[in-house]
Amino acid sequence: MQALYLEDFEPGQVFESKPRAITAEDIVRFASEFDPQPFHLDPEAAERGFFRGLSASGWHTAALAMRLLVEALPVAGGVVGAGVEALEWKAPVRPGDRLSLRCQVLEIIPSRSRPDRGIVRFLHEVLNQDGVVVMSQRPKLVVPRR
Amino acid sequence: MQALYLEDFEPGQVFESKPRAITAEDIVRFASEFDPQPFHLDPEAAERGFFRGLSASGWHTAALAMRLLVEALPVAGGVVGAGVEALEWKAPVRPGDRLSLRCQVLEIIPSRSRPDRGIVRFLHEVLNQDGVVVMSQRPKLVVPRR
Repeated sequence: MQALYLEDFEPGQVFESKPRAITAEDIVRFASEFDPQPFHLDPEAAERGFFRGLSASGWHTAALAMRLLVEALPVAGGVVGAGVEALEWKAPVRPGDRLSLRCQVLEIIPSRSRPDRGIVRFLHEVLNQDGVVVMSQRPKLVVPRR
Repeated sequence: MQALYLEDFEPGQVFESKPRAITAEDIVRFASEFDPQPFHLDPEAAERGFFRGLSASGWHTAALAMRLLVEALPVAGGVVGAGVEALEWKAPVRPGDRLSLRCQVLEIIPSRSRPDRGIVRFLHEVLNQDGVVVMSQRPKLVVPRR
């Protein structure tokens, strides 16, 4: 894939990742380190919990979205985020789900103070194998000029 | 710690976590799985990269913030996020940093459709050992009534 610079982006463009599977083992391992709560750790306790079954930590889904982004969007110099607006978890992520990322360009904002770069605003949606949006967010990425 | 219900929160309250250290090994292991880019993986390449030295993936910092939150805020039934506004990475997280979380209550919003719960809006700041805010966000948590 060819490296992408600020000049290569325009509003409405869509980039899509390949899918990536998440297993029960992945879910429990991530949660043990970062989100140790019964509904992310223990399938039996999870049945009685908020999500009615084992589900991934929302931060696990967000981290996987970053992995999918690095694979789908070859920004020159690397994918560097300045921040995120409106992160929402819309549906549980379950063991065996296959997640993919859809990135739509919303806006290109050249930097006033740094003429060698700008910000690209995106809508990112993480979808499961049934096309259900499980997470959405609007990140701002720092992108260099050519 | 006693479980916290919606009635226990009021604007201006502050909850603080204990600190937790992050090592170079942690940074590289997380990045290998979720954010495989040279500035998070390879100290030498990182010296020449965007962050001028090895730094943690922003999503690693966000995941650690969740761990600190689970330890600091014993919400009844578990810590469940509905979404996040204004997530910003403000300074690099380096190997050896000790991170802590400061949670300030901004607003309590009783649910209209679900009388058994509500939303608490927070300002969360992740600070390093020098008191520098490395990340901030405004999450919304789902909190049950007593």
